[in-house]
Amino acid sequence: MYTLLKEEGRAKRGRFKTVHGTIETPVFMNVGTVAAIKGAVSTEDLEQIGCQVELSNTYHLHVRPGDKVVQAMGGLHKFMSWHRPILTDSGGFQVFSLAGLRKIKEEGVHFHSHIDGRAIFMGPEESMQIQSHLASTIAMAFDECVENPSPRDYVERSVDRTTRWLKRCKAEMERLCGEPDTINPDQLLFGINQGGTYEDIRIRHADEISELDLPGYAVGGLAVGESHEEMYHILDEVVPHLPRRKPVYLMGVGTPANILEGVERGVDFFDCVYPSRNGRHGHVYTNRGKLNLFNAQYELDSRPIEEGCGCPACRRYSRGYIRHLL
Amino acid sequence: MYTLLKEEGRAKRGRFKTVHGTIETPVFMNVGTVAAIKGAVSTEDLEQIGCQVELSNTYHLHVRPGDKVVQAMGGLHKFMSWHRPILTDSGGFQVFSLAGLRKIKEEGVHFHSHIDGRAIFMGPEESMQIQSHLASTIAMAFDECVENPSPRDYVERSVDRTTRWLKRCKAEMERLCGEPDTINPDQLLFGINQGGTYEDIRIRHADEISELDLPGYAVGGLAVGESHEEMYHILDEVVPHLPRRKPVYLMGVGTPANILEGVERGVDFFDCVYPSRNGRHGHVYTNRGKLNLFNAQYELDSRPIEEGCGCPACRRYSRGYIRHLL
Repeated sequence: MYTLLKEEGRAKRGRFKTVHGTIETPVFMNVGTVAAIKGAVSTEDLEQIGCQVELSNTYHLHVRPGDKVVQAMGGLHKFMSWHRPILTDSGGFQVFSLAGLRKIKEEGVHFHSHIDGRAIFMGPEESMQIQSHLASTIAMAFDECVENPSPRDYVERSVDRTTRWLKRCKAEMERLCGEPDTINPDQLLFGINQGGTYEDIRIRHADEISELDLPGYAVGGLAVGESHEEMYHILDEVVPHLPRRKPVYLMGVGTPANILEGVERGVDFFDCVYPSRNGRHGHVYTNRGKLNLFNAQYELDSRPIEEGCGCPACRRYSRGYIRHLL
Repeated sequence: MYTLLKEEGRAKRGRFKTVHGTIETPVFMNVGTVAAIKGAVSTEDLEQIGCQVELSNTYHLHVRPGDKVVQAMGGLHKFMSWHRPILTDSGGFQVFSLAGLRKIKEEGVHFHSHIDGRAIFMGPEESMQIQSHLASTIAMAFDECVENPSPRDYVERSVDRTTRWLKRCKAEMERLCGEPDTINPDQLLFGINQGGTYEDIRIRHADEISELDLPGYAVGGLAVGESHEEMYHILDEVVPHLPRRKPVYLMGVGTPANILEGVERGVDFFDCVYPSRNGRHGHVYTNRGKLNLFNAQYELDSRPIEEGCGCPACRRYSRGYIRHLL
C-alpha cells in the first residue's frame, strides 16, 4: 500500500494507495473540522488548491450533525462531496481538550458535550463505530493524549491503557469492516504513539504498537505544550522505532518550519488548523515569512499576498482588498 | 448606448453598452455592499454565475475603507478585481435609512456615521465626488428617499429639492469627468424618480427629470413600506413617463415575483440583497418556491436545492450538507 520512492537521510518520499486515491507524501492534510474548512473554503476549492487528503474530526461530527446523519447520507465522501482520501481523528484529542469534566476508565471516557453538556461515553469501540459510520479512508485509534509535561507514572499507566485500547480498536475495526452494511469496508486504522516527553516510554510504546502491523502510525501528544526542541528530539528518538515502510503521521503539526523539520525526521503526514485559522485572522504565510494583513501598511498594497504565486487568491486579489475583506 | 431589442406589451429586452461591457436587460444586479457580496461570494464566483452588473454602496464604501483608498487602488474595478459593469448608489438611501440624527438642508445632509458616529456631510457634489473616486460604471443621483407613507406636502417639497439636487449632480458629474485624473471619465449618471405613493407627483417628477436627457433613470422610493399593489400601481403610472429608449431601474427590488411584475411594466434593472441575505439565513429561492434549509425535513435530503440546476451549489452539494454548513 505504501511505496517508499526516495530517501534522503531520514526524510522519505512515499506513495500511499487507498481506496479513495493515491496520496503522495510528505503531505499536508487540510482540516475540515465538521466536514468543511471553516471560512467558506468549499471542497471544490480544496480540489483546486491540490489538497490530497482532508481531515475531519470524529468528536465534532458525532456532536453535529451526528455520525448517523452522515452515515444515512452515504458517508463523509458523499456528504461533503469530496472524492479524495479523508482521515478522521479518533475523537480522543477533543475529548481531552474540549470536553469539561471527564472520567477516564478502562472501558473508555465519560464526558460532556461542549455544545449542550449532554453526557457522552466514548471508548475504542465507540470511536471505531463512529468512524465507520463516517466511512473515512483512514481512521485513527482512540488514545489518551496527555498534556506536556505530565508526571512520569501517569504517562506510563496512560500509555499502557492506550496500547490496550489500540488492540480493541483493531479488533473492532476488523469486525466493522466485515459487516454487510459498512460503507467503507476498506477503512484503514492507524495506531498512535504516545508517551509525553519521556523518550524511553515513547520508544517502548512505538516498538509495541509496531508489532500490531497496522497500515500506518502516528506520533500523537506533541505540539501540546512542549518546546519545539523537545518535539524534534522526540521525533529523532521515536520515528526510527516505527515501521519505515509505512506512513508516519505527526498529528496537529504545524508551522511551515515545523513541517520541514518533521519531513527531515521521516514524517509523511501532517495536519494543522494554522493555514485556515490564521488566514481567517489575517495572518498569512509567505515564502518571506508571515504577514498580518490587518497591519495598516497593507491598506494600499496592490501586490498579491505572495508575488508569483498561482493560487486563486494570489492570481487575482491584492493585499489591500483582502485586508478590506477581513 | 441603449438598444431596444424587443418589446412585448410594456416589457422590454434591451442592450446597454458601457465602457466596462454590455449589459443585457432585464438584468438583476448582485449587491456587494462594501465591494464584496456578504457571505464569501468572490468576484470569481460572480463571473461563474453570470453576474452582469455588480452594485456597491457609496455610503458604506465612503465609511470603510474610504473612497480615497479605493481611488488610490485604481477604482472599484481594480480594487475588487471585477471587470464588468458596476453601479454605485448615491449614498442617499443609507443616509436616510442607516444614519442617526440628520439635518436635511438645501446644500445636502448632515448626519453621523453608523459605524463610529463621526459627523459627515453629503450633498449632490460630495456624492458625485465619492462615486467618481470609486469610478463605477454607473453613478446614481443623490436624492431623498422618503418613507411610505409620507405627508403630501413634505413629498412635494422633497421631490422639488431632489430635482434641484439632480441638476447639481449632473453639473458636478460633467465637471468631474473632465478632470485629468478621473479614473473613469465615461462614468454615467442615472436620475432617480421620487414622489412616494402620489402618482401625480411621481409623474410630474418623471417628466421633469426626463428632460435632463440622462443615460438612464431609476424609480426610487419604492419597496420602502408600501404594499406590492401600490408599488405595481406606481410603476404602471410612472414608467410610461420615463424615456422608453433608456434603461429603467427599479431600485432595491426584490423577490422573484416582484421582478417579473417589474419586467412586465417595462423595468430593465433590478437589485436586491435578498438572494445573498436570504441565502446566508438558509432561505433559498427555487422554481417551486422558497425553502428554509434550517427546517428539519432537509437533514437527510440528498437532493440539490434545485433539481436540474447547473449552478455551482446545485451541481455538487445536497440540501442536507448545505443545511449542515448553515
